[in-house]
Amino acid sequence: MAGNENIAVSSRVRFARNISGYPFPNILDSARSHELIESVSKSLKGRNFSRMDIETLPEVDRLFLIERHLISPDLLKNASNASVLLKKDETISIMINEEDHIRMQSIQHGLDLDEAYAIASDIDSELGSKLKYSFDPQLGYLTACPTNLGTGMRASVMLHLPALKLVNGLANVFSAFSKVGFTVRGIYGEGTEALGDMYQISNRTSLGLKAEDLLQNVKRAANKIIDSEKLARENLIKNQKNEIEDRIFRSYATLKYARMLNSKEFMGLISDLKLGIYLGLLNDNDNNTADKLIIDMQPAGISKRLNKDVNPEQRDLTRAKIVRQTLNKHITE
Amino acid sequence: MAGNENIAVSSRVRFARNISGYPFPNILDSARSHELIESVSKSLKGRNFSRMDIETLPEVDRLFLIERHLISPDLLKNASNASVLLKKDETISIMINEEDHIRMQSIQHGLDLDEAYAIASDIDSELGSKLKYSFDPQLGYLTACPTNLGTGMRASVMLHLPALKLVNGLANVFSAFSKVGFTVRGIYGEGTEALGDMYQISNRTSLGLKAEDLLQNVKRAANKIIDSEKLARENLIKNQKNEIEDRIFRSYATLKYARMLNSKEFMGLISDLKLGIYLGLLNDNDNNTADKLIIDMQPAGISKRLNKDVNPEQRDLTRAKIVRQTLNKHITE
Repeated sequence: MAGNENIAVSSRVRFARNISGYPFPNILDSARSHELIESVSKSLKGRNFSRMDIETLPEVDRLFLIERHLISPDLLKNASNASVLLKKDETISIMINEEDHIRMQSIQHGLDLDEAYAIASDIDSELGSKLKYSFDPQLGYLTACPTNLGTGMRASVMLHLPALKLVNGLANVFSAFSKVGFTVRGIYGEGTEALGDMYQISNRTSLGLKAEDLLQNVKRAANKIIDSEKLARENLIKNQKNEIEDRIFRSYATLKYARMLNSKEFMGLISDLKLGIYLGLLNDNDNNTADKLIIDMQPAGISKRLNKDVNPEQRDLTRAKIVRQTLNKHITE
Repeated sequence: MAGNENIAVSSRVRFARNISGYPFPNILDSARSHELIESVSKSLKGRNFSRMDIETLPEVDRLFLIERHLISPDLLKNASNASVLLKKDETISIMINEEDHIRMQSIQHGLDLDEAYAIASDIDSELGSKLKYSFDPQLGYLTACPTNLGTGMRASVMLHLPALKLVNGLANVFSAFSKVGFTVRGIYGEGTEALGDMYQISNRTSLGLKAEDLLQNVKRAANKIIDSEKLARENLIKNQKNEIEDRIFRSYATLKYARMLNSKEFMGLISDLKLGIYLGLLNDNDNNTADKLIIDMQPAGISKRLNKDVNPEQRDLTRAKIVRQTLNKHITE
């Protein structure tokens, strides 16, 4: 796997849009909420989205969509009046009646904000040609929260930063970028946890800059962090070769042989596996085996796969089994 | 590996003997100590022993012999006046001027006290025919410590008891056998540690019973403990199948992939490996791979193998490498 792609896991662009003449979702009544869902759906009829209404969606499917970052936990707060439109390949999702009427996002592998932007813009244009967006010449797109005014756009990159973590270099990076308008946070886990050493950098506000400039800023920031991570990795292998090889092979071994793996332990081990692939200690014949596992091995994903109610022990057994089979198929020493 | 042999690692019989007319070693002067070493050596001239004088033996070789249980740490206290005679295959060792003038022991694989006894007796007869043992018709063989009076014999069996450990069943077993004249103690590690879950059961005194009866008693006690361990293993696999399989495969994986292994961690992992072989989760094409590694991978053994002064990190790297190679050669899933 190319170095950058190992570190930059995915890129995402989302637009917040609201429809003129409708109050924001938090005060929109049920009838008009559903009217809005219908008109958004109809506007994208030719685009092959599948629509899921949160109200009728089983709990496990709701969690599944959250795990895959296709919907936000906030969408569930308005469950009876909210829907999501989804492409089968999961590259585009459109939440309806979350904080704003429309939240559309495009996700791409690796560092590819331009493509994510192009895809999201395409949907945005189509919707904008059929629905009347709330737009102000001074403020740009009007949104429920002022941080989304202007372009209504958020661009983000998911980064795998195990080496910066190991050398205690994250705090510096985060505070530096925080001062100049970016948000950096852990992706998996709760509170200050960042399971799997996965972090997301994004623009904090979207007002006062053109979308293209905003995109460039996030790209530049992500690239700087990637360079820091690369340097930290080089230093690790230079100064702590034995320790880092030991750590990576132990984690690989555990993933390859454990019979039970809980989610948290799995995330720590798979982070080491990714690092091992980057360092050339392990080979991946499928290019992004680790990233796919990270997405697929979250709790609801496993429950859905088993297609029944499962307890944590059954989930941990299944996770270990799938991980084992996947590593045996794709990872070589 | 047969079940009993997996649990009973080795059997050992040793005789304590002293030579008439010589004070016990603790008050024996240097000249007479060396005289005694010479006469014992000469008496066994035809037997192909190699003789090592502790005084001229490098530190690493001294530790090496202790690790392999061929000499006792006590022999070093009298270093300038002590020697050991050793068979190349390490099945017999004879310490001269430890606590007694002569301590000869025979070690056999598995539960085979009879063979160990036969071999030790053979040497004992040969020595007894050439030297005049201190013997009292009432007290039997006279020894420096009264616990060795009588037959001067200690019979012991080394047992691998991971399942009794896991189900907290060791305390019961030990106190039961302690009450009826046996000593049970950990073999590796210091104080109350029993690294590798290795324990030794032996007769506490040697007076008042014929050698053959004493041998039978130890054999019977060892067999009872073996039965308890077997039962504990059956229950483990019946009641905690997932946990125990997970544990064993993780340990196997770490042994197979770690790049650094310290002695203590290694002993814990290899104990699980042995258990995994017994339970049929792993196969050993060499029958006693784990037992050999336990003996060979102790610190001084590794230093000798590297044939130079090594620091702990180099030792841990080498241990991991040899263990890896050995497992790849002999252990299959």
